[in-house]
Amino acid sequence: MIKDLAAREDGTVRVSGWVEKVRDQRYVQFVVLRDETGAVQLVNGGVLREPDPENPRSDILVPRTRTISELTHGTFVTVTGELQHNERVKLGGVEIQIEEIEVVAASLPDNPVADDSGIDVRLDWRFLDLRRPEQNLVFRVQTTFLHALRQVWIDHGFIEVQTPKLMASASESRAELFTVEYFEGQAFLAQSPQFFKQMAQAAGFGGIFEVGPAFRADPSFTSRHATEFTSVDCEFSWVDSHEDVMELHEELIVAGITAVKEKHGAEIEKLFGIELEIPSRPFPRIPLAEAKEIVKERGYEVPRADADMDPEGERQIAAYVKEKFGHDFVFLTDYAWSIRPFYHMRHAEDQSLTKSYDLIYNGTEISTGAQREHRIEILEQQAKEKGLDPEELGFYLDFFRYGVPPHGGFGMGLNRVLMLMLKQSSIREVTYLFRGPNRLLP
Amino acid sequence: MIKDLAAREDGTVRVSGWVEKVRDQRYVQFVVLRDETGAVQLVNGGVLREPDPENPRSDILVPRTRTISELTHGTFVTVTGELQHNERVKLGGVEIQIEEIEVVAASLPDNPVADDSGIDVRLDWRFLDLRRPEQNLVFRVQTTFLHALRQVWIDHGFIEVQTPKLMASASESRAELFTVEYFEGQAFLAQSPQFFKQMAQAAGFGGIFEVGPAFRADPSFTSRHATEFTSVDCEFSWVDSHEDVMELHEELIVAGITAVKEKHGAEIEKLFGIELEIPSRPFPRIPLAEAKEIVKERGYEVPRADADMDPEGERQIAAYVKEKFGHDFVFLTDYAWSIRPFYHMRHAEDQSLTKSYDLIYNGTEISTGAQREHRIEILEQQAKEKGLDPEELGFYLDFFRYGVPPHGGFGMGLNRVLMLMLKQSSIREVTYLFRGPNRLLP
Repeated sequence: MIKDLAAREDGTVRVSGWVEKVRDQRYVQFVVLRDETGAVQLVNGGVLREPDPENPRSDILVPRTRTISELTHGTFVTVTGELQHNERVKLGGVEIQIEEIEVVAASLPDNPVADDSGIDVRLDWRFLDLRRPEQNLVFRVQTTFLHALRQVWIDHGFIEVQTPKLMASASESRAELFTVEYFEGQAFLAQSPQFFKQMAQAAGFGGIFEVGPAFRADPSFTSRHATEFTSVDCEFSWVDSHEDVMELHEELIVAGITAVKEKHGAEIEKLFGIELEIPSRPFPRIPLAEAKEIVKERGYEVPRADADMDPEGERQIAAYVKEKFGHDFVFLTDYAWSIRPFYHMRHAEDQSLTKSYDLIYNGTEISTGAQREHRIEILEQQAKEKGLDPEELGFYLDFFRYGVPPHGGFGMGLNRVLMLMLKQSSIREVTYLFRGPNRLLP
Repeated sequence: MIKDLAAREDGTVRVSGWVEKVRDQRYVQFVVLRDETGAVQLVNGGVLREPDPENPRSDILVPRTRTISELTHGTFVTVTGELQHNERVKLGGVEIQIEEIEVVAASLPDNPVADDSGIDVRLDWRFLDLRRPEQNLVFRVQTTFLHALRQVWIDHGFIEVQTPKLMASASESRAELFTVEYFEGQAFLAQSPQFFKQMAQAAGFGGIFEVGPAFRADPSFTSRHATEFTSVDCEFSWVDSHEDVMELHEELIVAGITAVKEKHGAEIEKLFGIELEIPSRPFPRIPLAEAKEIVKERGYEVPRADADMDPEGERQIAAYVKEKFGHDFVFLTDYAWSIRPFYHMRHAEDQSLTKSYDLIYNGTEISTGAQREHRIEILEQQAKEKGLDPEELGFYLDFFRYGVPPHGGFGMGLNRVLMLMLKQSSIREVTYLFRGPNRLLP
C-alpha cells in the first residue's frame, strides 16, 4: 500500500495502482501512481528511446522507456523498484526508481472527465470521478461514521434488523410510492422502514437499528433529494418522551464525528479545508414555534400557510444557533400535529403539538424523530383524523393490538449527513451512485 | 433489564416487559415477565379478591389482585417490587414480590399463534412469533455475526458502499427480474450488487463490502429461496486468483462464528441444543469435478445434464467432508465455464474451467465467489459467448475500458448462513419478515 511507503526503509518495493500523471522529459520520466491509500512518484532515470548497442542494458531500458511514454491516464500498473527517501519530493518525501513496470490493465487514452466537468458528466463516468482522492475520502469517512454508530447501538444491546423493501401497501404517503410488478399482482417499495421497525417493538426486541435503502418517487431536482437513498434508522422501547430519543441521537452523532475526526481529521483538513468539530452535548433544543419567532426577529418570515419551517428558515435558525451557542446542530422540537404523520405521539397537555423533533445540521434537516403513539385506540383515531385508509393500515395497526411498550426513534438521511459534514454542495457528491428522476445509470 | 437481575442484590427493583404466563392460584399469583434479555417470575403473595374492611391494605391489594387476574398474554407491564434471590426458583434463581403493577399496553385476550401453529400462521403474526426467545436469539446472533464481519473488513481497510437497488437494465439474468414503474419509464430491482461492487474496483476503492437487500422474481417455494433476501457482499483488487478470495472468506466466517460463540454460545446450546464449532482453517477445497466423482462413489449420481451439482449432491459432499475432515464447510472450486456467469475468469491453462467456487455449509450452498475477468476484450468475448446483449451491458463494460486491476469477491446469503448455523428448517425462520411469491405481509 502506498500509504505505508514513507515508514519503510529504502530498498526494493513492489506497488500497484493507477497512473495519475506522466511527465515524459528528455532524460527522465516521472509517473505519479495512486492507489486507494495515496500517491507516490515513480522515476525512470534510465531513459533510452532507441536501441543502443553500446549500452549493455539497452534491451531493458528501451522497452521500459516506451512503456512509460505510452502510459495513459488511469492505466493500472504494477511496479518494482528502489524506494528512496528524499525530502525534496513533495509527494510524501519518497520516490521509487523504476526497475520493472508491468501494464496490468490499460485505459483508453481519452479521459471523458475533465477537471472542469459538470456534475452530470462526472456522474455519467462516476467510476472515474470516484478515483479523485476527495471522493475516495468521502466513502472512507462514511465507513468510519457508520461503524462508530453501530458500535454505540451494539454497546446498548440493540439488534440489527433488515426490514423488507417490498411491501403490500403504502407505508406513509401514497403520493411518492414506486410500484413493482409482483408476479400476478403488485407491490410497493418501502419509503422508510417506519412500520417494520415499530414491529420490532411489538416483538419485544427492545432497541433495533438498520442502515438500508429507502425509495421515494419524488420528482424534485434539489440538492437534497434522491429517489433512492440510504436511511439510518433506529427505534427503541420504554422511552418516556422524545427527549430519550434525542439523547441517543446526540450520543450517536458525537460518536460518529469523533471517530471520523480521529481517523480522517488530518486528511479532511487537507482535502476539504475543514476542521471537524466534535459537537458538545446536549445539542441546543428549540421548540419549533419559538424557532419561527427567532427567525422572524432576524427579519425572515417563513412563507408557508402551515406551521412548518422551510429550508431558508432552517438556515436562519442554524445561523442563530451558531452565533449564540457556537453549535452546528439544533433540535427543533414539538412540531404541530397538523404537519406530522399520524403515528407521532401528541403531548397529553397540548393535543396540537407532537412529541417530535427535526435535527438540523449546518442549516439543513437531516433527521426526524419522535415518540410514537403506542395506544391502539388513539393511534386508530389519529389515522382517521389524517384521512388514512384503515384497511390499508390493517397489518400495521395489528402490531398494537397485542401490546406494545412506549417507544420512539428516528430516521436519518446518511447522504445528507455526509454532504453537510464535508460541506459539499449536493448529495450527488457523496452518494456512491446517485438515483434521480432522470438518472438510473451507470 | 431482566438479565441483570441475578447479579443484583436483594432490594427494590423496577422492570418492564410483556406477560408470558399467569398462574392465578387461590392464595398466590405468579406472572412470568419477559423482556428482550430474559424472563423473571413475579409473585403476588398478597392476594385479596374482594374488599376486606379488616385489612388495612385492602385498597391496594384488591386492585392489584384483579389487575393480575385480568392480565392477558403479551400485555406490556411495568412492575415495582422486591427482588429476592431464591435457589428454588428455576427461572434464574430470583423472583420479584410485586408491590405495584402498571398495565402499559394491554394485549387482546386471544393469541392467534399457538404452540403448534404452522409456519404460515406464525408468519402472519410474525411480531408475536418473534417474541419467542429462540427467535429473539436468532437476530442477536445475526447482529453479532455481521458486526464481526464488518470489523474484519474495516481492519483490512475495506470501504463500505451502498450500491443502488434501482437499475436501468438487467444485472445478471433477465429471467428473475422485478420491474418498477419509474416515472415515465421503468427500472429494475437489483438481483445482486455484482456490477456496482466491481465498479468500485475501477474506481480504485481497493476492497469494499456491502450488506443489503437483493431481489429475485423467483417463483419457487423451497426452504432456501425468497424474493427478497439480505446479501453479504465483498470485492477487492489485486487478487492473484480465487484462492485469495477464499482466504478472506474463511477469515470472515471464522471471525463471525467465533464472535457468535463467545457472546451467545451458552444460549444457543440452551435454546437450540447446538454446540457451535469454530471451523479450522484452511477449509477443505475440492474441485467440483472431483466432488462429483466422490459423490458418485458414495452411490449418488447427480441427475443433471450440465456440469453442476444439485442440492442432494451438496449434502453428500458435505457428509463426506464431515466424515473425512470433521469440517462443516467445504469450498467446491473450478466450476465449469458452461455453468458460470460471463464475468467469471477462466483458467489460462484450461478454458473450460473458471477460477470460481461455491461455499457449502452443513450441506447447503451459502455463497458463490470468483476472480472476475478484468480484461475488456476477453470480458466482451465472454458476454457474447453467453448470448448477452452488449447494448444492455454497455454501462458495465465501460468500467473496464479505463483500466481495472485484477479483482475478485463473493456474495453470500445471510439468511442461509443463519439457517444453517442454527440448524433451522427454512430461511423463513431466520428472516425478520420473509418475502415470497405469495407473501408480502405483514
